[in-house]
Amino acid sequence: MGRVTERRKVIRIRDGVVSTRPDTLVAEEPLEIRLNGKPLAITMRTPGDDFALAAGFLVSEGVLAEQGDLQNIVYCAGATVDGSNTYNVVDVRTAPGVVIPDITLERNVYTTSSCGLCGKASLDAVRTTARWPVDDTHGGIAPPVRLDPDLLASLPDRLRAAQRVFDRTGGLHAAALFTEDGELLDIREDVGRHNAVDKLVGRALQNGDLPLSRTVLLVSGRASFELAQKAVMASIPVLAAVSAPSSLAVDLAAETGLTLVGFLRGSSMNVYAGEDRIALRAAAAQG
Amino acid sequence: MGRVTERRKVIRIRDGVVSTRPDTLVAEEPLEIRLNGKPLAITMRTPGDDFALAAGFLVSEGVLAEQGDLQNIVYCAGATVDGSNTYNVVDVRTAPGVVIPDITLERNVYTTSSCGLCGKASLDAVRTTARWPVDDTHGGIAPPVRLDPDLLASLPDRLRAAQRVFDRTGGLHAAALFTEDGELLDIREDVGRHNAVDKLVGRALQNGDLPLSRTVLLVSGRASFELAQKAVMASIPVLAAVSAPSSLAVDLAAETGLTLVGFLRGSSMNVYAGEDRIALRAAAAQG
Repeated sequence: MGRVTERRKVIRIRDGVVSTRPDTLVAEEPLEIRLNGKPLAITMRTPGDDFALAAGFLVSEGVLAEQGDLQNIVYCAGATVDGSNTYNVVDVRTAPGVVIPDITLERNVYTTSSCGLCGKASLDAVRTTARWPVDDTHGGIAPPVRLDPDLLASLPDRLRAAQRVFDRTGGLHAAALFTEDGELLDIREDVGRHNAVDKLVGRALQNGDLPLSRTVLLVSGRASFELAQKAVMASIPVLAAVSAPSSLAVDLAAETGLTLVGFLRGSSMNVYAGEDRIALRAAAAQG
Repeated sequence: MGRVTERRKVIRIRDGVVSTRPDTLVAEEPLEIRLNGKPLAITMRTPGDDFALAAGFLVSEGVLAEQGDLQNIVYCAGATVDGSNTYNVVDVRTAPGVVIPDITLERNVYTTSSCGLCGKASLDAVRTTARWPVDDTHGGIAPPVRLDPDLLASLPDRLRAAQRVFDRTGGLHAAALFTEDGELLDIREDVGRHNAVDKLVGRALQNGDLPLSRTVLLVSGRASFELAQKAVMASIPVLAAVSAPSSLAVDLAAETGLTLVGFLRGSSMNVYAGEDRIALRAAAAQG
């Protein structure tokens, strides 16, 4: 079974001085995700949390939304000639009655819209596939999430403090889930940023914690459309990124009511959408 | 037609002071790549250089290897209900006689190997699909590429100096191609790291410059298996990354003879494979 890191010999050059030493690298291996026995997707990922990764991937694709949608997940044996298990193929079985949307790895979720292939079609596909709206009020029962900028600003340091593997390899993306009070709920690391988020969301599904209506998702890098999509599909109301968002991530956030924060560094941040969840007046008063 | 950047309103919070201003974001839009009329892949990319992106993607997949393999590339009209062109669908026509390998977006390139799905199968797939070996000597005619560490160390600064869009958005990955003497041949930027490399390689194919046997590929971030695969498929002998490589990228480099340099920062770097192309003794003498 795969490991999160692997050792390799490396030649280091530091200011002209050459030395040879073992180095710790982030492990990368392919994972095939099967849905009810049928191959659906292959992703290059860091081994570990593979069941959570598969479950979270299927939340993003609109297949799973609740703990009860999932019957079980197993590693497939017999994937090799000698029948041994590479632990690189997982099969997700859905519970009876779960309707499987028309998805393939060609991601025709983006192409079935009547407007042709464009950013608008991608936005529409997420909106029509999502099981829940982004609704932190639970249908108007709870007050909306309202975050102090100082609390948001404190999250990247806490993400870094909790990252176990990054310091050793420098090769991992991290994603963390916080409560609206800034409590760290979970953190996952992976060679692929989208995998780290899938592992978080999948673990939440397995624990019966979806929808994640009162949480903040923090990612270590940029915020792409795909990451915003994953937040929306899990009904996470706030996505914060240490680096820049893309235009389509901002558009998706604006359309779905997701709060999107970028360039979250030190005491600074940019709010691109859903600013009603950020306590801006309090911040201004401190300025 | 899409643009490389887009403007959006952003709320900035700096040390508690709130201001609203327009911000420049990197544009992200889906691109569907068709091969001889058949949908093959959808990638989220930054619009621009779409034909090069499609051509480079097909080099990585083992479909195209030489300028003559390519008949033409067109934007597909009629992808929308009203028949207008979204400029998000391209069709690549191969020249008569080009054999299309069995590829699909399910990337069964990774699964057809007899060893089942594992890192080794991924390595085998690249080796058997590659049209040329990584051979900077042109079959023994030329002396091997030999790079001074100081020259390598100078490349990231030159990449950053040449990056046009990054400074405005912070959201782009960059990939650049240099000669063995450190001359910048080409630079491409994209919201996806793999797209930036595909654009470089595709442009080289269109110009009749494949295989890229005497070049250095520099990428702004990490070196994954996928990026190492793209270097190998284009016969690029040296891949240098500003950040960490993954275990499988190192394994692929070691198996194929690719020189893989990581953590290329200041005057320091790590050499993970193919160290014969780095002038190590000269470096040690300077130490």
